[in-house]
Amino acid sequence: MKHSLTALFGIQYPIIQAGMAGGPTSPRLVSAVSEAGGLGTLGAGYLMPSAITNAIGEIRKRTRHPFAVNLFLPEEYEYRAENIEEMRHFLQPFRKSLGLEDTADALELKSIFDEQLQRVIEAEVPIVSFTFNAPSSNVMTQLKDKGIKVIATATSVEEACTLENLGVDAVCAQGSEAGGHRGTFIGKEEDSLIGSMALIPQIADAVSIPVIASGGIMDGRGVAASMALGASGVQLGTVFLTTEESGAHPLHKKAILQAKETGTALTKAFSGKMARGLHNEFMDVVKGEIPPYPLQNALTSEIRKTAAAKGKPEWMSLWAGQGVALSQMRSAEEVMKSLVGEANKIMGAFEPL
Amino acid sequence: MKHSLTALFGIQYPIIQAGMAGGPTSPRLVSAVSEAGGLGTLGAGYLMPSAITNAIGEIRKRTRHPFAVNLFLPEEYEYRAENIEEMRHFLQPFRKSLGLEDTADALELKSIFDEQLQRVIEAEVPIVSFTFNAPSSNVMTQLKDKGIKVIATATSVEEACTLENLGVDAVCAQGSEAGGHRGTFIGKEEDSLIGSMALIPQIADAVSIPVIASGGIMDGRGVAASMALGASGVQLGTVFLTTEESGAHPLHKKAILQAKETGTALTKAFSGKMARGLHNEFMDVVKGEIPPYPLQNALTSEIRKTAAAKGKPEWMSLWAGQGVALSQMRSAEEVMKSLVGEANKIMGAFEPL
Repeated sequence: MKHSLTALFGIQYPIIQAGMAGGPTSPRLVSAVSEAGGLGTLGAGYLMPSAITNAIGEIRKRTRHPFAVNLFLPEEYEYRAENIEEMRHFLQPFRKSLGLEDTADALELKSIFDEQLQRVIEAEVPIVSFTFNAPSSNVMTQLKDKGIKVIATATSVEEACTLENLGVDAVCAQGSEAGGHRGTFIGKEEDSLIGSMALIPQIADAVSIPVIASGGIMDGRGVAASMALGASGVQLGTVFLTTEESGAHPLHKKAILQAKETGTALTKAFSGKMARGLHNEFMDVVKGEIPPYPLQNALTSEIRKTAAAKGKPEWMSLWAGQGVALSQMRSAEEVMKSLVGEANKIMGAFEPL
Repeated sequence: MKHSLTALFGIQYPIIQAGMAGGPTSPRLVSAVSEAGGLGTLGAGYLMPSAITNAIGEIRKRTRHPFAVNLFLPEEYEYRAENIEEMRHFLQPFRKSLGLEDTADALELKSIFDEQLQRVIEAEVPIVSFTFNAPSSNVMTQLKDKGIKVIATATSVEEACTLENLGVDAVCAQGSEAGGHRGTFIGKEEDSLIGSMALIPQIADAVSIPVIASGGIMDGRGVAASMALGASGVQLGTVFLTTEESGAHPLHKKAILQAKETGTALTKAFSGKMARGLHNEFMDVVKGEIPPYPLQNALTSEIRKTAAAKGKPEWMSLWAGQGVALSQMRSAEEVMKSLVGEANKIMGAFEPL
């Protein structure tokens, strides 16, 4: 019998709001989920260290319940310098069309991870979740010394076992249905696109730490199904994107509310790392040799931000999972109540909220 | 509330053994599943009409319980004549290496579907299941006139609604985890790779006929999860491939028993239609412009058969789903007992076998 996620994290329901980076996880959303008995997560992957400290302060003003902060672990990567210039050249018409100046500035490549981590440790957040890699033993020691619990993301059995051996407290099993970036860190992303129905039981059999199911879960049916497959809890992203409290761009919310289940695609066009989002023009046009993450991310960042500001969703990264057509406009509390109530009806797994 | 699949088909448990074409669904396997309270299915897609009649006779000698026959519905396709010749030329070294003669025979393109269907109707089988397309109204009328129940395969909400409107009795929702050929018949196969966790609830919401979940289900956890997601029943293929009764090639069984969850890939190399199987050399080598199904299937058929006879799994189509690492060597009855018992423990959904 695996440990209970609720006891491990001190939460009422084993339901985690995913730490979606880039704006959706406002302190309002994070705190509303934690207030409703789940685990809200600040998606801090792209946040400057000072912004992380500020956001944690805002969350704490709003809730005394546990919450998590999600960070992107740095990775090794290789690239051809000419490829950067080719991509810069290729993206020039996008910049011009948006009124952005041509730029040959060197890319900002210095990882801010260490500073981000220090802010999170200083703030003594109860839980940190990671993706994009396995945490180093040095990172694990720093967090364990402070009693901070660690979640890390796996897309295969081998990754899950690697994370367990490093001492993480729970593993988030990311099915191929999931929106946003793939967390694959062993082998190629293309080879680790395992659907949740197959991934969850295989990871649950392989590790003794609690497994958090993610990918395609949108309602209480998905929660109950995940528990049946052997998960100890669930993590949902897309369903929280369209909540009132979500900081997602209004065009992102609108596109999600109109999307069909066949409307998402996997792409490296936006960031150089494979991610699932609503199929749009940028994905179709930006193909070929794409510089790896975080290079492509830096190259397209201003284009995406300006496209959002100018109301041009076809050039925005509209991350979404394959359950997208089940999205609704609700409050985070309504989402939580519905998840718990429906799962409870099916499984008898939880107490009513 | 949807109709119960057990009442619809006259079976004890809503568990279907998939109609895997090409040999695995021996009359022994089909009848063993039906005898154990599930629904065995003869995979007759590639069978000559007389072989279908014979197999049905064999099944009936072994069980009085209902069983199904699966057929491939014909599709429209376009091709370039030169592409056939290019592929024939490309495949020549494979033939030579296997000791097969160079051949320039015209491809056998005449569909045998109408004759296959007549044999199934003459035999008054209780249930027919289809994939690769939607049945025509003419086909539906012939089957309904005989009181034959119809299952058809969908990989998207739109396909499921199309099938419901045509009057099928149940829709099989094929998640991206599934082994073997994709059943996509609207749009591109690449756009309908929806994981079961996301696909099942969205199809269940869209249709009022029973939904049969398929893709990645390997044990009672998958059965319970599928029911939680809104399915009325399940269909499993890979788990039955390695049973004693399965007619799958010994090298296919062996490869499945050794495979990891990351070991499958989607390919059109074998048949021209996208299918999931164990990643091997043939998938890596046969790329580029591949003639559509059934042309490529005809072009590679002798190569695959001879590779199997000569013990060369790297050129065989080793179909398998993403739950493959959960495979075991058991009897079909043991599989059924385990599915029912485990699902029952989780859900309390079924009576013990």
